[in-house]
Amino acid sequence: MMEAARTRTITWDDPTPGTQAAPALSGLEYMQALIAGTLPHPPISVLMNFRLVEAAFGRSVFVGEPAEYHYNPIGMVHGGLVATLLDSALGCAVHTTLPAGVGYTTLELHVNFVRPVTKDTGELRCEGVVLHAGRRLATAEAKVFDGAGKLYGHGTTTCMVFPADTNG
Amino acid sequence: MMEAARTRTITWDDPTPGTQAAPALSGLEYMQALIAGTLPHPPISVLMNFRLVEAAFGRSVFVGEPAEYHYNPIGMVHGGLVATLLDSALGCAVHTTLPAGVGYTTLELHVNFVRPVTKDTGELRCEGVVLHAGRRLATAEAKVFDGAGKLYGHGTTTCMVFPADTNG
Amino acid sequence: MMEAARTRTITWDDPTPGTQAAPALSGLEYMQALIAGTLPHPPISVLMNFRLVEAAFGRSVFVGEPAEYHYNPIGMVHGGLVATLLDSALGCAVHTTLPAGVGYTTLELHVNFVRPVTKDTGELRCEGVVLHAGRRLATAEAKVFDGAGKLYGHGTTTCMVFPADTNG
Amino acid sequence: MMEAARTRTITWDDPTPGTQAAPALSGLEYMQALIAGTLPHPPISVLMNFRLVEAAFGRSVFVGEPAEYHYNPIGMVHGGLVATLLDSALGCAVHTTLPAGVGYTTLELHVNFVRPVTKDTGELRCEGVVLHAGRRLATAEAKVFDGAGKLYGHGTTTCMVFPADTNG
Repeated sequence: MMEAARTRTITWDDPTPGTQAAPALSGLEYMQALIAGTLPHPPISVLMNFRLVEAAFGRSVFVGEPAEYHYNPIGMVHGGLVATLLDSALGCAVHTTLPAGVGYTTLELHVNFVRPVTKDTGELRCEGVVLHAGRRLATAEAKVFDGAGKLYGHGTTTCMVFPADTNG
Repeated sequence: MMEAARTRTITWDDPTPGTQAAPALSGLEYMQALIAGTLPHPPISVLMNFRLVEAAFGRSVFVGEPAEYHYNPIGMVHGGLVATLLDSALGCAVHTTLPAGVGYTTLELHVNFVRPVTKDTGELRCEGVVLHAGRRLATAEAKVFDGAGKLYGHGTTTCMVFPADTNG
Repeated sequence: MMEAARTRTITWDDPTPGTQAAPALSGLEYMQALIAGTLPHPPISVLMNFRLVEAAFGRSVFVGEPAEYHYNPIGMVHGGLVATLLDSALGCAVHTTLPAGVGYTTLELHVNFVRPVTKDTGELRCEGVVLHAGRRLATAEAKVFDGAGKLYGHGTTTCMVFPADTNG
Repeated sequence: MMEAARTRTITWDDPTPGTQAAPALSGLEYMQALIAGTLPHPPISVLMNFRLVEAAFGRSVFVGEPAEYHYNPIGMVHGGLVATLLDSALGCAVHTTLPAGVGYTTLELHVNFVRPVTKDTGELRCEGVVLHAGRRLATAEAKVFDGAGKLYGHGTTTCMVFPADTNG
């Protein structure tokens, strides 16, 4: 029997202009430019089909739509989607607290998967909130819900914070 | 200035036949069928550009190629790629220890990011090894290296194991 | 110069009666008996100088007093104290949701340390809350504060839940 | 019925001299002075009944003896003991890589519990090994075994590294 293969074409923008614009903006200004469409959404966002929808000081929200192209070999959406949503919301929540010229990097990510996600789950919403914002260290927590408010996963992160000129 | 947008078209197979074949095979037989191409690689593997290359009892290895389409808004590959590789190698290492009819689910994933990944990093290799294989619980650890053996990230997982008929 | 060595004598009760009473009580009843003093506080609680002070469905609170005997070799309270407080509040929050005859075990614990604790920090308060309570799986989060509400650490856990007769 | 209460008296040394000696020694020299008894074991070590027995560059080993005074309310040794052993072996493994004058702090600790520990388990051995030693960041993994080599728990850590004069 012949199976019809599935096809999807994605289109994204060169991420360099966004990355170059970042140091001159505070984290929150940068997030707001992404939401407003002034700066392009990053490629991973197109690839995995999710996007930033809200940003405030210490907080960020992403939504994403699970699909068959996210499937793992055991018949459900791969944990990588929930991990990617959590990592995004956690990192961006930290980023919203940083002034212009201050960078960060994610040191670790912890993910709990509490329910399986399928292509019928519908839109997922991932909310990240900063727990600790120190001079060199920030931590955050995030949760992933479906449209009915049911929890699918949650996570935490540790980020290192540094002025852009000491970056590396 | 007008920027040329980037485009990529992916093609994957209906994952249902693979998922339906799984319960009749041991985890290791299933992994070997994926490597041999008898069963199709899962959609996430096509989407994120990585694939299973080795499987043995208690062990699995994946390779993946970082690209611009994996980029985050801060100018490097999104942590979701390393998290997805680790989750795959960890889950599959556990799966290789399970007889036919026994399923598993990933409860939690912990990821450490120790170096930034860019599109110039080259092929990443992710090796997962089981640490504990109990009747209802399994744990594993995995590491992500570049072609020179440099470490980019590492992680651990906890999986719950159950006979397929008690699944859910 | 001769230094005066420090001495501390601890006294605890045989934990067996408490453990034997547990299966006949719901988790919440058991916690309330500990708080009321009807059942003895567990030995670890005496050893590490902390105690359960509040329990409600899905929630538990512990307080503990950091002291010199908790010190590590680098001049502050060892991370084991914050880890022990978090593990206690997380496990007990899960336990409060379980009916009589249903047991649990902690599979994993994740701890973030955000500020150093010293013997001058004063009483720490650790609050645990359940995030997901499923049939076989529960997760929870907890935070450690000082008397002024400053955050010192936070954590999450995954517990496996099982009827007492399938325990082990 | 009257139960005989249990009593234990612990004696420890003022940790200040050890802490003051530390900055002049490399991490490995400091560990070796602890093992040799030139510097006193830290108070937590006495309290929880464990001690450093081996140190080499990037590696440390602790042993500890589980006892009734480590018990939790559900009839086994509290997870805090395994967490404390892991945190010690992980932190000390990192510390052995640091030259004199360079400090570190533990940012996060992840613990997997794979078997219950009781007072009959016998001596536990916890081995920590550094995975990544960077300029500002170090990670390590550790495992806890009994005398027969059976695994009871494992963990990982992220530490921040800094010259003593930028400490804080």
